[in-house]
Amino acid sequence: MSVKNLAVVIHRKNDMRLENRPIPEISSKEVLLRMDCVGICGSDISVLTKGRLGDYILKEPLITGHESSGVIIKVGSGVKNLVPGDRVAVEPGIPCRFCSLCKAGSYNICPDLYLCSIPPCNGNLTNYHKHAADFCHKLPPHVTMEEGALMEPLAVGVRACRRAGVTLGSQVLITGAGPVGLVTLLVAQAMGASNILITDLAENRLKTSKQLGAQNILVIDPNEKEENIVKKVREVMVPDITIDCCGYEATTRLAILATRSGGKVLVAGLASTDVKIPLVNALAREIDILGTFTYGVEDYPAALALIASGKIKNIKSLITHHFDIEEAPRAFETAQKGLNGAIKVMIHCQPRNSNNSTNF
Amino acid sequence: MSVKNLAVVIHRKNDMRLENRPIPEISSKEVLLRMDCVGICGSDISVLTKGRLGDYILKEPLITGHESSGVIIKVGSGVKNLVPGDRVAVEPGIPCRFCSLCKAGSYNICPDLYLCSIPPCNGNLTNYHKHAADFCHKLPPHVTMEEGALMEPLAVGVRACRRAGVTLGSQVLITGAGPVGLVTLLVAQAMGASNILITDLAENRLKTSKQLGAQNILVIDPNEKEENIVKKVREVMVPDITIDCCGYEATTRLAILATRSGGKVLVAGLASTDVKIPLVNALAREIDILGTFTYGVEDYPAALALIASGKIKNIKSLITHHFDIEEAPRAFETAQKGLNGAIKVMIHCQPRNSNNSTNF
Amino acid sequence: MSVKNLAVVIHRKNDMRLENRPIPEISSKEVLLRMDCVGICGSDISVLTKGRLGDYILKEPLITGHESSGVIIKVGSGVKNLVPGDRVAVEPGIPCRFCSLCKAGSYNICPDLYLCSIPPCNGNLTNYHKHAADFCHKLPPHVTMEEGALMEPLAVGVRACRRAGVTLGSQVLITGAGPVGLVTLLVAQAMGASNILITDLAENRLKTSKQLGAQNILVIDPNEKEENIVKKVREVMVPDITIDCCGYEATTRLAILATRSGGKVLVAGLASTDVKIPLVNALAREIDILGTFTYGVEDYPAALALIASGKIKNIKSLITHHFDIEEAPRAFETAQKGLNGAIKVMIHCQPRNSNNSTNF
Amino acid sequence: MSVKNLAVVIHRKNDMRLENRPIPEISSKEVLLRMDCVGICGSDISVLTKGRLGDYILKEPLITGHESSGVIIKVGSGVKNLVPGDRVAVEPGIPCRFCSLCKAGSYNICPDLYLCSIPPCNGNLTNYHKHAADFCHKLPPHVTMEEGALMEPLAVGVRACRRAGVTLGSQVLITGAGPVGLVTLLVAQAMGASNILITDLAENRLKTSKQLGAQNILVIDPNEKEENIVKKVREVMVPDITIDCCGYEATTRLAILATRSGGKVLVAGLASTDVKIPLVNALAREIDILGTFTYGVEDYPAALALIASGKIKNIKSLITHHFDIEEAPRAFETAQKGLNGAIKVMIHCQPRNSNNSTNF
Repeated sequence: MSVKNLAVVIHRKNDMRLENRPIPEISSKEVLLRMDCVGICGSDISVLTKGRLGDYILKEPLITGHESSGVIIKVGSGVKNLVPGDRVAVEPGIPCRFCSLCKAGSYNICPDLYLCSIPPCNGNLTNYHKHAADFCHKLPPHVTMEEGALMEPLAVGVRACRRAGVTLGSQVLITGAGPVGLVTLLVAQAMGASNILITDLAENRLKTSKQLGAQNILVIDPNEKEENIVKKVREVMVPDITIDCCGYEATTRLAILATRSGGKVLVAGLASTDVKIPLVNALAREIDILGTFTYGVEDYPAALALIASGKIKNIKSLITHHFDIEEAPRAFETAQKGLNGAIKVMIHCQPRNSNNSTNF
Repeated sequence: MSVKNLAVVIHRKNDMRLENRPIPEISSKEVLLRMDCVGICGSDISVLTKGRLGDYILKEPLITGHESSGVIIKVGSGVKNLVPGDRVAVEPGIPCRFCSLCKAGSYNICPDLYLCSIPPCNGNLTNYHKHAADFCHKLPPHVTMEEGALMEPLAVGVRACRRAGVTLGSQVLITGAGPVGLVTLLVAQAMGASNILITDLAENRLKTSKQLGAQNILVIDPNEKEENIVKKVREVMVPDITIDCCGYEATTRLAILATRSGGKVLVAGLASTDVKIPLVNALAREIDILGTFTYGVEDYPAALALIASGKIKNIKSLITHHFDIEEAPRAFETAQKGLNGAIKVMIHCQPRNSNNSTNF
Repeated sequence: MSVKNLAVVIHRKNDMRLENRPIPEISSKEVLLRMDCVGICGSDISVLTKGRLGDYILKEPLITGHESSGVIIKVGSGVKNLVPGDRVAVEPGIPCRFCSLCKAGSYNICPDLYLCSIPPCNGNLTNYHKHAADFCHKLPPHVTMEEGALMEPLAVGVRACRRAGVTLGSQVLITGAGPVGLVTLLVAQAMGASNILITDLAENRLKTSKQLGAQNILVIDPNEKEENIVKKVREVMVPDITIDCCGYEATTRLAILATRSGGKVLVAGLASTDVKIPLVNALAREIDILGTFTYGVEDYPAALALIASGKIKNIKSLITHHFDIEEAPRAFETAQKGLNGAIKVMIHCQPRNSNNSTNF
Repeated sequence: MSVKNLAVVIHRKNDMRLENRPIPEISSKEVLLRMDCVGICGSDISVLTKGRLGDYILKEPLITGHESSGVIIKVGSGVKNLVPGDRVAVEPGIPCRFCSLCKAGSYNICPDLYLCSIPPCNGNLTNYHKHAADFCHKLPPHVTMEEGALMEPLAVGVRACRRAGVTLGSQVLITGAGPVGLVTLLVAQAMGASNILITDLAENRLKTSKQLGAQNILVIDPNEKEENIVKKVREVMVPDITIDCCGYEATTRLAILATRSGGKVLVAGLASTDVKIPLVNALAREIDILGTFTYGVEDYPAALALIASGKIKNIKSLITHHFDIEEAPRAFETAQKGLNGAIKVMIHCQPRNSNNSTNF
């Protein structure tokens, strides 16, 4: 077949190449996609620059990318809900469907999860990608392909807020105003949180949060004493729930110490492997310490509903940069170094707006 | 003491009188309130026109009214969080605090609940009323006394949506576009429901729901066959959750039959005592049938947060009529007969806007 | 292939035949079983005697039976956890694994559930049966094949008690002392219920419950006034939870009226399609009305653990009769008519104790 | 009044005295108790030997003791459920009943909790003690006063198992075979756990666990590598739930590393204030890290039901030593140093068996 299938492949640490790959064959419950938008995630950058993501080590060349949207061009014989031409957001993790965790509704922690772009599973920053049909979520016409790709980080925020139990009237503290913090902010508002305080080390990073509707922002001086930082937070708000979108020892400690008795701390950022935490303080006040891994049951649909219904209108503002697939190395550099105020960098596998009803 | 304390008292069925009553003495954990706004509720009308509300029979003259706001004029020695001058919404049910249901966080179904205006407990459509301090919720300056009184129906909607598990992306069917249906609609949106269908018998009653943001409305022809009505609903939406704000046999049956397998039916309206329901259909599809009684833990605070934070901006539009306390009989007639499109009728115990920072 | 595969087939209402059927071919995730024990369930009797089970109509000849155990004789290429010779309990419902209910952990209400012996899905009262490998639960050596077959009704009890929230200290009312009532009793004890009252119409049916450990039994006189029956129950116990193992209008009404405020009513029996219930009583006291369909996540493993660990020692006493597969018609008659005090009737597809380490 | 009221008072670190104290006056919702049995808890030992319990500092002389039972000798005017002569277990923490945590059913973490024997709240190792009537749990005649006092540690086990979600079929790892580990073991069995593994540093401490029904025990060599210890545990069992009854860094780390993905770690022991934990491991596998403080809603009643119903028969074996109140110093020494294999040391404020129907 002479059709080209360009793919962005990480061969080893700091060795990213553009290659032509065969177009995949699909089975009965799968679809073949022509990819459109793929956002760059911190985990992809980690694989590129460190050759690993935590315990997942890069051993073979790996197609990167997993925050993505595409257009169906072929469906397997057993696929009922999709037809060629459908525009979809691609939920990148495909579980085994047979283990006890899958059956129990916890497919995201299935030990055999195929998770795009996490070694050794190929991602979808490529022209053609095959995927399980039921993990492709059809986009309504008025939702853009860029928004489709943003479903992925948004679904992370959905899961974080759900696991943390954000609800009507919640007082929520968010640590970190990066992409995860910002989507968490958007979702927490949509779930009825009445007061949100977001913290970061630099004021300029907090600007976007203010625009996105945070009631309160607080610049943290990392050299200040822990007890003073806790005090400052508590002067603004005593959180029912803290979502730590960094995962540094300092932020996780702050999360525990600031949250009210009986509240919840959800750690969504995973910066530090081992963390020294004030455990007795947490336990004796019955604060639950919880985590999330990617997104699970109904998280993608909820993320999509938030955009499609117009409840979240401003998610576009997270995208600061656009590149073509051929420019992938430069796109990754921009994202990694945060060049020109980069928040979310989007890579286009097709000419921009090819599949949008209105220009993004 | 020569100060007058005018009270609206139901002596017996269809016998409502304006009387002067002594000003109550307060104990250490109570406050004395000068009442401001009191909305008329269907339960108050029932006591007036039937001499009962379900099993609660009117035996002694009863001060009516429980959807209310007022201003603190005196606090007991043990009251720490309120001071004279504070403007508050009055949560009308005061539990015993000692029984196992109170301890378990279910104070609303405490068997010894003192519930204002439900026989034999006096309400607060009166000039001076004493109340448990911790059941008075302080209003921020920009919230009006009218909105304070509307906390009560809004809290009913909060509890209904919480018990029904409304969350991000929920597909919600609401039966009945009266006050309960409308507050439920507002709360379901604020909790992240992505699609709401509301039904009623008459199109004109559905107008307000459309203005308040319902995605879909459906006029039900009560003479149509049940299976056809179910089919029509399901053509618009297959609900995850149905909140039956009527409680008629026909609506509860519709709620069960229309809801998806594994979904929830919450019956918030209590029109019919005994109802013939398609039980096997509900059980074999694991649909939970749930109810609510008034409002409980954190429901009033959540209702207040919805107004104070601006998440619900349009609740004012529920109030269609205003009367002074001396006009109570006419106010009740208006509410009971739905005169002039009455939805919520408000009675003022003080001159309008006496305690508002801006005119309502 | 000349090996015989005898099957018990219902052709139409009251027309049961013994037939030879081809031995099934298996796919990669399936196993082939040589069946051993198959218990008779009320639903199988309903298909035989009424030609239907509720809305499931018998249209084609159907192999009956679904409470079963067998021995693996062949495994598909993708099967990792089982090998030929393994003795297993067969969980009879196999879900689609792809729909939103499956993914959410509610596989038992999957709309495409293949449920053995419910029209149009063949059961396993036959010599050879193929099944999804992950729905075969391996029995430890000391568990008998008869106990393996009893996993099925026991799993029904597990799900009922779990959905109803039976826990340490629960006061539980069970209506009906048939097989479902008895397994529910056993499971409720194992989950920590401290007091169980079981009711039935005839004293002799309550004997087994007493032997199985019920603290209290109560014979109900169906001609007595409802309010008196409720009173009698409440004199013995005010239930936190009632599990209605009949599903008649009278028992469901009793369940609701007897249960304490804030409690739960789970209807496990499905006798009556439409039931007139005291809905306001249930709702205003916030009693949840719940149902169950078969068994879901972790219910079979929990049932097996109960037997294997010795927590439930006396489940054998439920089996009152044994028949060979060739005697199936007489076995069904015994079960249907409750001949000779029949509770659970067991059919053997192989000579008794062929696969048991000790005689049953 | 000339009646003596002997009290065991800690004046300062390592200064315990026997003193005569006035008999307390009771208010309308209180009772006066003649104390019978009081067990010694590690927290009481901490106050004696360190002058503090964590952040609770001994500043004034304090009556010690809180694991207790007594006999009602006087009831306040508003007490309905108890009469003089009633034998009761005393739940030692009395909440404020007015704060949001109390209303929400989390009375054990009420910031104004009066908790017997935790500075500055007096305990009840004394002859006469007044208490809130609703925190006195009436013992049935066949339950001994010693068992009444053991309700307290048993309720700790109840809360730990409930918060950790122990249920039918749970695989439970318990670290530490001291009193908390042992009651947790008993409760986990009663809630349906099918397999329990308990670890400790010394084999002789694990003997009692074996007698109390643990399926597996494992002696941990603290000098072994962490990964090897985890491996050894997992060779015996992969826990759904781990209850860390020590709270040392090593045990909490083991708890996290050994537990299956999607499982729960509950830390019940509070040995170390700050603990370095493998947070990413916990979060990425969605393991919840939870704590408990004392006991809350329905925990004491459940503990009592376990004893009264005979579900737990062997709790007596926890009591290894008995002393009279006059021997309190020696009793504390025995408990503190673990003399003669001491597990639980019981102090008697009245002659032994004065209030028991049969000798303990």
